[in-house]
Amino acid sequence: MTRSQLIEQIFQKKSYLCVGLDTDINKIPRHLLSAADPVFEFNKQIIDATKDFCVSYKINTAFYEAMGVRGWETLQKTEAYIPSSHFKIADAKRGDIGNTSTQYAKAFFEALSFDAVTVAPYMGADSVKPFLQYEGRWAIVLGLTSNEGAQDFEFQKLRDEYLYEKVLKTVSQWGTTENLMFVIGATQDGQFKQVRSLTPNHFYLVPGVGAQGASLKAISEIAMNKDCGLLVNASRAIIYASDGEDFALKAAAVAKAYQLEMSTYL
Amino acid sequence: MTRSQLIEQIFQKKSYLCVGLDTDINKIPRHLLSAADPVFEFNKQIIDATKDFCVSYKINTAFYEAMGVRGWETLQKTEAYIPSSHFKIADAKRGDIGNTSTQYAKAFFEALSFDAVTVAPYMGADSVKPFLQYEGRWAIVLGLTSNEGAQDFEFQKLRDEYLYEKVLKTVSQWGTTENLMFVIGATQDGQFKQVRSLTPNHFYLVPGVGAQGASLKAISEIAMNKDCGLLVNASRAIIYASDGEDFALKAAAVAKAYQLEMSTYL
Repeated sequence: MTRSQLIEQIFQKKSYLCVGLDTDINKIPRHLLSAADPVFEFNKQIIDATKDFCVSYKINTAFYEAMGVRGWETLQKTEAYIPSSHFKIADAKRGDIGNTSTQYAKAFFEALSFDAVTVAPYMGADSVKPFLQYEGRWAIVLGLTSNEGAQDFEFQKLRDEYLYEKVLKTVSQWGTTENLMFVIGATQDGQFKQVRSLTPNHFYLVPGVGAQGASLKAISEIAMNKDCGLLVNASRAIIYASDGEDFALKAAAVAKAYQLEMSTYL
Repeated sequence: MTRSQLIEQIFQKKSYLCVGLDTDINKIPRHLLSAADPVFEFNKQIIDATKDFCVSYKINTAFYEAMGVRGWETLQKTEAYIPSSHFKIADAKRGDIGNTSTQYAKAFFEALSFDAVTVAPYMGADSVKPFLQYEGRWAIVLGLTSNEGAQDFEFQKLRDEYLYEKVLKTVSQWGTTENLMFVIGATQDGQFKQVRSLTPNHFYLVPGVGAQGASLKAISEIAMNKDCGLLVNASRAIIYASDGEDFALKAAAVAKAYQLEMSTYL
């Protein structure tokens, strides 16, 4: 999906919501466990119930890999089920030396049909660039993450800037605003202004709203740009809104509430 | 596998060689393409031919993911085929917020039975610690990598040290020499002394020998400790030593040559 197609979806739906499919078989409603593929059945119903309120889905690969081969099958079926109107993110945090990153890019952009993959920056340019070689596909590079561990290295001070600032400045030179986004945690509200000044035109994938406790308001008010420039993800807060037979209805209600709040910021 | 078991294998075999199974279906001998699972058939023959000369195998997950569900099946079969006498590494470069890293640890230590997983440090403590919760299993955290991109961030200067040095010092506090190793690229010979002084007792997984051009001699002479403390990986130089019907024989010969050289350093 191109940038202009994504922007069109956002303004049409008045939503920049991404629903995170971090589906854990131990947390889904019990009545689904008799299905042939309970996790896929869950994802299917979640997608059907929320697709009008979001513009993107994010599949967290860890939850599927934890189920072995069967999980990878479920991942593939889920990716294929997401409507092509929605921006499909593999939240995989990949990254390796060049020839290996090329294989990861093939995995997510050729064997599977994701629009974007999250990528870890530690290993530098040759680990990121192979993801930037596909027309209409994206690398979403970790900038400033939402977790406590962000303090350990991302906030290490270089001469006159934090490491995460150096990452944003350097990585943004490797691609364009048409093939590169950054992960910016919604919990990092003290840094939003600085983040936006370093990368004024990029889109951000923003985790941390919902179960991780950050507010949608701060990131929206401080870091939105004229093209919106945000995809705000909520996973657990939406998909586990209820653990009963009404889980899809409840997920839709939470997604709709996010969409309504988002419409006021756009 | 525990540290003492690994050390025993190394001194028994006089080898600290790790064979990297970066198996690309486009590079294996053509006569294997008629097998039901050509990549598995290739891996099986490589393992049979090299197992006497190495103490470890490293499966590069990217090459399997690039083949979709089928690749994940091949990965699983290959992992199961590696003898339990050998240290089994998933070279996966994973790492995410705590609850997601927990799922990656399950994927490689429960759904699969690897001894170790490579882990990216950028996201900090909660992204690494879930891999340290398994008795006899290991996280191998990226310290100083072998690729050109290592210059971009790993060599960024903090107040009085490089980022990679900060990573070694900080991450080594999160685990022990019984559950934590570091990736140290064999191409980084100017740093081996400093690396070893920061982490005197840890094992290193050392890529970069072979196709990437670094020497086995430098890392062995400068960074070996009393327990050896090294697992030196070669992938392409061994597994693609020949693309003919003699590929396994040629792989064995290259692996044996590494083992012989290693025996002189031990």
